[in-house]
Amino acid sequence: MVHYMQECLGDSAHDREHVYRVLYAAMDIAGTENGVDCDILIAACLLHDIGRAEQFENPSLCHAAVGGEKAYRFLQSVGWTESRAGAVRDCIVSHRFRSSNPPLCIEAKILFDADKLDAAGAVGIARTLLYKGQAGEPLYSVDADGNVSDGSLDTELSFLEEYKHKLEGLYTLFYTGRGEALAAERKTCAAAFYESLLREVRESCRIGKARLAGELSE
Amino acid sequence: MVHYMQECLGDSAHDREHVYRVLYAAMDIAGTENGVDCDILIAACLLHDIGRAEQFENPSLCHAAVGGEKAYRFLQSVGWTESRAGAVRDCIVSHRFRSSNPPLCIEAKILFDADKLDAAGAVGIARTLLYKGQAGEPLYSVDADGNVSDGSLDTELSFLEEYKHKLEGLYTLFYTGRGEALAAERKTCAAAFYESLLREVRESCRIGKARLAGELSE
Repeated sequence: MVHYMQECLGDSAHDREHVYRVLYAAMDIAGTENGVDCDILIAACLLHDIGRAEQFENPSLCHAAVGGEKAYRFLQSVGWTESRAGAVRDCIVSHRFRSSNPPLCIEAKILFDADKLDAAGAVGIARTLLYKGQAGEPLYSVDADGNVSDGSLDTELSFLEEYKHKLEGLYTLFYTGRGEALAAERKTCAAAFYESLLREVRESCRIGKARLAGELSE
Repeated sequence: MVHYMQECLGDSAHDREHVYRVLYAAMDIAGTENGVDCDILIAACLLHDIGRAEQFENPSLCHAAVGGEKAYRFLQSVGWTESRAGAVRDCIVSHRFRSSNPPLCIEAKILFDADKLDAAGAVGIARTLLYKGQAGEPLYSVDADGNVSDGSLDTELSFLEEYKHKLEGLYTLFYTGRGEALAAERKTCAAAFYESLLREVRESCRIGKARLAGELSE
């Protein structure tokens, strides 16, 4: 299963280490919940992002749906029953942040929380930036006068847009108490990073722009 | 000149907004130094990264050397004298962090500091991560047992390796007092981000790994 997962790896933000962090976080959370089927959960964690490459190639595809189907077929090909392979598929299909399929069973809720935890805090900031770099997106958008937008009203994709529209609000979306507590520990660092980044790029522009305008008008 | 700069842009970490941040920071620093030729400085800032695409295609090339020559030829083609185009080339050739050509004149020192300032603090962290994502490099390296390295002794390229070997130590390398002061204001945020990232990825692994080992041995 690890071999098949590695064959299907995507970008730096969804690499083998992301998969292992999700697996370890899921095992941490599972220790605080009752009635978890750990074989289902471990398989779902290892295979949750195997549809990433397809979505990267064709953004109209949903990596959760593609990955769920791939996992379902793979697990049956290595001897899992249709019922247990289907349980893993259900976890993977519902792990996506912007999904209309919320997780229902405890294994799906734990996978969702473990994956969202890797989008919280410094690691969430870092992975989002890796992904934006690979996609060729900028740090932020500027208006017609070159003023840096804080991301909140942006329609163009950028890191600050993603922070305001996804990362900043994810701390209230956890299904398990342990997942929510782990995420809460990471929130301050992520917010401080966003505030520092915005202050740095805005202050440098403000002072230098005024001096440049003076220089060019002489 | 802005048009030629935009034709030569590279990745998200060295995009138009990076060039403008460097220009504005240079104008800020120039206001605290004597005898600055602002036309030389503005041209050097706008054109300092026009050799990036060549270095990205062929890493044996130095973007500072390539960019200096391109700027020298471009400026003469639009009517600059050989002497003043040569002064801009000298600034660009010596702006590189890992260069054996230290900046000598005040315009070169200001360009160096303004460019290094964009590698300090949150913006330096963010740009490094964008660049690592585009290059397909990971956040960190792991040893044979899957333990996360802190980057300090790494030989493989990663974000934590770059932080320990480049970003962490750049705060002492500034040539101007204003550049050093601006960088110092940003240092705490960058250090806090590194520490948080390392703690998050190590803690999650430690607890989950122990639980996973227990589960797999049952």
